[in-house]
Amino acid sequence: MRIAILGGDGFVGWPTCLHLSAKGHDVHIIDNLSRRWIDTELGVQSLTPMDSIQERCRIWKDVSGESLHFHLLDLAKDYERLKQWLAEYRPDAIVHFAEQRAAPYSMKSDRHKTYTVDNNVSATHNLLTALVETGIDAHLVHLGTMGVYGYSSVGAPIPEGYLDVEIDTPAGKKEQEILYPTRPGSVYHMTKSLDQILFQFYAQNDGVRITDLHQGIVWGTHTEQTRRHEQLINRFDYDGDYGTVLNRFLIQAAIDYPLTVHGTGGQTRAFIHIQDSVRCIELALQDAPEAGDRVSIFNQMTETHRVRDLAEMVAGQTGARVAYLPNPRKEAAENDLIVKNDKFLALGLEPTTLAEGLLSEVVDVAKKYAHRIDRSRVPAVSGWTKALGQRVERDPEGKSLKSVS
Amino acid sequence: MRIAILGGDGFVGWPTCLHLSAKGHDVHIIDNLSRRWIDTELGVQSLTPMDSIQERCRIWKDVSGESLHFHLLDLAKDYERLKQWLAEYRPDAIVHFAEQRAAPYSMKSDRHKTYTVDNNVSATHNLLTALVETGIDAHLVHLGTMGVYGYSSVGAPIPEGYLDVEIDTPAGKKEQEILYPTRPGSVYHMTKSLDQILFQFYAQNDGVRITDLHQGIVWGTHTEQTRRHEQLINRFDYDGDYGTVLNRFLIQAAIDYPLTVHGTGGQTRAFIHIQDSVRCIELALQDAPEAGDRVSIFNQMTETHRVRDLAEMVAGQTGARVAYLPNPRKEAAENDLIVKNDKFLALGLEPTTLAEGLLSEVVDVAKKYAHRIDRSRVPAVSGWTKALGQRVERDPEGKSLKSVS
Ligand SMILES: NC(=O)c1ccc[n+]([C@@H]2O[C@H](COP(=O)([O-])OP(=O)(O)OC[C@H]3O[C@@H](n4cnc5c(N)ncnc54)[C@H](O)[C@@H]3O)[C@@H](O)[C@H]2O)c1
Ligand SMILES: NC(=O)c1ccc[n+]([C@@H]2O[C@H](COP(=O)([O-])OP(=O)(O)OC[C@H]3O[C@@H](n4cnc5c(N)ncnc54)[C@H](O)[C@@H]3O)[C@@H](O)[C@H]2O)c1
Repeated sequence: MRIAILGGDGFVGWPTCLHLSAKGHDVHIIDNLSRRWIDTELGVQSLTPMDSIQERCRIWKDVSGESLHFHLLDLAKDYERLKQWLAEYRPDAIVHFAEQRAAPYSMKSDRHKTYTVDNNVSATHNLLTALVETGIDAHLVHLGTMGVYGYSSVGAPIPEGYLDVEIDTPAGKKEQEILYPTRPGSVYHMTKSLDQILFQFYAQNDGVRITDLHQGIVWGTHTEQTRRHEQLINRFDYDGDYGTVLNRFLIQAAIDYPLTVHGTGGQTRAFIHIQDSVRCIELALQDAPEAGDRVSIFNQMTETHRVRDLAEMVAGQTGARVAYLPNPRKEAAENDLIVKNDKFLALGLEPTTLAEGLLSEVVDVAKKYAHRIDRSRVPAVSGWTKALGQRVERDPEGKSLKSVS
Repeated sequence: MRIAILGGDGFVGWPTCLHLSAKGHDVHIIDNLSRRWIDTELGVQSLTPMDSIQERCRIWKDVSGESLHFHLLDLAKDYERLKQWLAEYRPDAIVHFAEQRAAPYSMKSDRHKTYTVDNNVSATHNLLTALVETGIDAHLVHLGTMGVYGYSSVGAPIPEGYLDVEIDTPAGKKEQEILYPTRPGSVYHMTKSLDQILFQFYAQNDGVRITDLHQGIVWGTHTEQTRRHEQLINRFDYDGDYGTVLNRFLIQAAIDYPLTVHGTGGQTRAFIHIQDSVRCIELALQDAPEAGDRVSIFNQMTETHRVRDLAEMVAGQTGARVAYLPNPRKEAAENDLIVKNDKFLALGLEPTTLAEGLLSEVVDVAKKYAHRIDRSRVPAVSGWTKALGQRVERDPEGKSLKSVS
């Protein structure tokens, strides 16, 4: 298949490109490299030394003999070029990672909020319109998030995308299937909720074939392919905006920094290892809906954990201490989360779980590159409201922390 | 109160400005005049001769002694100026009409789709972020549409915004309140569904006080104030993109053009007279939610009718003939629609219904300005898909129409 990977220079996008290329697909990367610019803006860099995308493609060609094609293009701003590109390359499938994806970054300031909304909505909508306009019947696989549902659920298992509800009518109760209701908790998560509405409309009006993967938090760094050469190594974010919770704990442990738990740590989150993430995308590509079908929604996660339990587990394995800090997010202190992932299991996914020792692999990566860490970038400093922004981790070393376990 | 009317140069915005000014409020109009530019693009003009906004404000001052203040500003593109404006003028309330509002226009081409999404989402989101950033606690009243729910409902009465659903949990069934599920049928309607998600988030995260008015199709042209001077007359759209169904029938009748019904005319729609619309906005302004409340949603309509019944009614009163044409929209041929409007009735709205003779007033307006009508702009030519676009009214006079009743 000819596959376009939008956002293929990113954390999940890059290993997906390698995985699909290794499987013999003709892979084209589209990216505006905005994440590299955001690294510059925030004064952070990937823990792992990350070469330019052109250099990474060159190395992959050396290592595997396969070509990856890179196209610099902003989905949100270069609509006409996107259309031309689609008309010229006519991909069979498109994997869409190309959005601003950090909740804390999306809440930093008004500028970050408007950037996130404008970038993500325009990127997704431009893509959909361009598919309709060019008449290209590519299967569109999009990366959504479990977080779109919010985390104050009534404790019901989250199904794969849809909910049957009963509605009172003059002729008695009738069943109707609706999109599982969302309750996004940040501007970033909100954009994924907006995406869902865009997908529903274009599937219904134009028969665009869409799969939406509601992904949990991705952890780990290596996949089979990124291991093949040092310069193929994946991005590893550890800063307070882009670093995600489990990877951050592992880094913190590696550099003897307290594991920073926000609030009680009673938040339950869904997780998936990067190797499973790329495998799920491959499985989803093989399971395309038909034109006219509703959007096919998968929960792409393998396990759920409470944040404090993760911290205690990493602390137990590494000897790190845990620091309980004020929560800069506006969210329920404690929540349950039960998620169904039957669809991927049925397609043959064999989950890699935290228990399987890969945790130590990540700690090894973190230790190897520990000299590249800027400790002042570890704290999470973006508040969900101005008042919450006052309460954030100002003390990088956690030396003045009150409640340390 | 100091009230900002965003989109105050438009069809509903202008009479709202006059109504609120007449009630003694300090009214500020914000508009980028994009609708006047769209008239130019489409080569159409309001049936009624519409002066510049500056001239209209001058006349109102002469007639009433009250000042209206006009500010040229694009909500979607001038974010920094919007923020400055809010910080300087500190409105107590904001009425937000400023969106691209024609479903057919939103479906004309890819350029019109992307314009509608980018304009409407950015306008609404910029406004919300700017309110949070400036800390101005203004009550935001937004104009949504009944059409957000789609028209293939299960025949249940549409409640005012929310639905209680039962969800299965391990601990038994639990009730949860959700936004009434939407199923927008055009890119325009889709943007109103996106707006709902934006409102839900900003009410929840930042305590923005929001009222969302899900309005039916507005008909009529005069209000008490627009009647006070010829140059205060309201905009009257009759073309295939911006003209809305009932007003179009009345114009068609006035110029001896067949009443163009699309499909079977079995579509049921909700309606409200322009005088009631401005009155509802005044009522909504008096009923502001508290910070932290959920978004307050009203159904702003007074009656529902099937399109073919409306056509037959206008035909009966005027002697016009009815032409049944292919439907350029992708929608159910027939649908029921039952809408609850208890909230406005409770606040004291006394509906003006079609039965009350105002129909003939509109026909009089149409006849008076009939010399200004460009018959070639009457057909609806925007198709919902390329295939449907082929089937549209190409024959302006309807002379070759097959099925004419
Ligand atoms: N990393 C996670 O834990 C996680 C969890 C759930 C969902 N997701 C989703 O998966 C996707 C990929 O996440 P990631 O961690 O790889 O993010 P990332 O930030 O590493 O990668 C995103 C890539 O998209 C590119 N991009 C952004 N806007 C673009 C535009 N307008 N035009 C072209 N390129 C653009 C960026 O330059 C970047 O290379 C995102 O949509 C994210 O929401 C990620
Ligand atoms: N007319 C109806 O039948 C009807 C029915 C239901 C809902 N509504 C809603 O009511 C609102 C007003 O409708 P209308 O019929 O008066 O529309 P309209 O097109 O006559 O007026 C909209 C006004 O907003 C302005 N505008 C658009 N984008 C802007 C931007 N980015 N910045 C500043 N100004 C901008 C336009 O210039 C125009 O003057 C719309 O939101 C519409 O969706 C209208």
